[in-house]
Amino acid sequence: MSVVLDGRETTDKVMGEVAAEVEALKARGVTPGLAIVLTGDDKNSARYVGLKKKRAEEVGIYAELYHLEQTTDKELVALIHRLNDDPKIHGIMVQLPLAEGLSELKAVDAIAPEKDVDGLSPNTLGRVLMGEDCFPPAGIEAIMELLRRYGINPNRKHWVIVGSSNFLSKPLAAYVMNLSSNVTQVDEGCPHIAKRIKDADVISTEIQKKHFVKADMVKEGVIIIDNGNTYEGKKVYGDVDPEVYEKASAYTPVPGGTGPMLIAMLLKATVKAASL
Amino acid sequence: MSVVLDGRETTDKVMGEVAAEVEALKARGVTPGLAIVLTGDDKNSARYVGLKKKRAEEVGIYAELYHLEQTTDKELVALIHRLNDDPKIHGIMVQLPLAEGLSELKAVDAIAPEKDVDGLSPNTLGRVLMGEDCFPPAGIEAIMELLRRYGINPNRKHWVIVGSSNFLSKPLAAYVMNLSSNVTQVDEGCPHIAKRIKDADVISTEIQKKHFVKADMVKEGVIIIDNGNTYEGKKVYGDVDPEVYEKASAYTPVPGGTGPMLIAMLLKATVKAASL
Repeated sequence: MSVVLDGRETTDKVMGEVAAEVEALKARGVTPGLAIVLTGDDKNSARYVGLKKKRAEEVGIYAELYHLEQTTDKELVALIHRLNDDPKIHGIMVQLPLAEGLSELKAVDAIAPEKDVDGLSPNTLGRVLMGEDCFPPAGIEAIMELLRRYGINPNRKHWVIVGSSNFLSKPLAAYVMNLSSNVTQVDEGCPHIAKRIKDADVISTEIQKKHFVKADMVKEGVIIIDNGNTYEGKKVYGDVDPEVYEKASAYTPVPGGTGPMLIAMLLKATVKAASL
Repeated sequence: MSVVLDGRETTDKVMGEVAAEVEALKARGVTPGLAIVLTGDDKNSARYVGLKKKRAEEVGIYAELYHLEQTTDKELVALIHRLNDDPKIHGIMVQLPLAEGLSELKAVDAIAPEKDVDGLSPNTLGRVLMGEDCFPPAGIEAIMELLRRYGINPNRKHWVIVGSSNFLSKPLAAYVMNLSSNVTQVDEGCPHIAKRIKDADVISTEIQKKHFVKADMVKEGVIIIDNGNTYEGKKVYGDVDPEVYEKASAYTPVPGGTGPMLIAMLLKATVKAASL
């Protein structure tokens, strides 16, 4: 029987705990504060950051939204520096991708490591690689939180990570290198991808290819972490074919797996930043 | 026939090129400057940094050596901040390990990314992972320089990296993730280490176990990068048994492989920093 790593149910639990922690912090005179920075005029991004602000406020976090429709690297970096120095703000998240023409590296590099609650900056990613204290990318925290809640030890496994983004797959590989695990990172174009996947105790995918991973590609008992999101109309599909679930010992469904966890992880990190 | 990736010969070539670049920079009014920071009273470290200074001066680099026998995190960080602001200094290298009681993370985190010519700071390691411009750790540069000089393309290979240090193996895995390659990172205690190694197109070892890798563990035509150094008296041995060399298409010997390249790579990075 395979265990469903239920991101919706887990999100509800995490949000309840985060709300309780916020209350405890407020009793000590600290209100956790989150600044959200959005650039450009993408409607979906605007909706998503609006949801982040709403969820933050639901658990009692003080949230500020900065929407810079037209901006420059210099202005954006100056805003982030100002937020670094603002004692009301414990966490800063910059919505990616930025509006066209802006440097993502300059923006994320400006975030102070102790306020980088979404795990975007090079300094944070270096700390992830070194195994040092930091706020890892929310996508990594979502995976680790789900595994923890369902009693699955991520250590001493052979992880195969399919994907190469800077906000999930590469940092996840770096993170796993500190878990006494083997880790193999491949991208979609890798000629021996099937062979690599077959070896995995844990597979994490992030390639946006609907149902790319099939049952005959994995071994019995594998743990599936599916970070794929391919939209067809209003329906969303993962990178892993549901026929794989039967062979898996545990899996994150799509939808309802890692996706819903992301905001909760951002808020949890913000509260942790406020408590430090 | 296997190709010997000769670190001594390549070092001589690189040093000649670096000397010529220094001359060209001086003609433009810029003298590359390197600050070397040593803590504690370890005799071997003192000898090694002395050699770094000497080699730097041989190629015309201005070098300063700061030897802090007794110091604190605060003092050390203040010195590094001062060097960050010093226009004569283009590169800063802090000799690791630090003297007991000092925080390595605090020290390396203080180095400005544009002066981090030995690739030690979390910011640099994050940039390595992201595939962004930076000065990668000298050990990585040594490997890539050797491969380049001998016409070996590091891309689109299956790399197996045995080791987990913060100054070579983990950053190397991060680096390789940006080469359209597969990468598997394992540490010495991994139960399936033999199986992983057998799959490799390129093996990099850094486990300090004399002749750990044997001929029957690798596939025909493998490229061997041996970063091991096990001393027995004055003799030094790599992690790879020389019996493997016959099966390899190319290999770095020990001694005379990657080791001699390290100082040259530091100096090359210093000159690059000065030219930017």
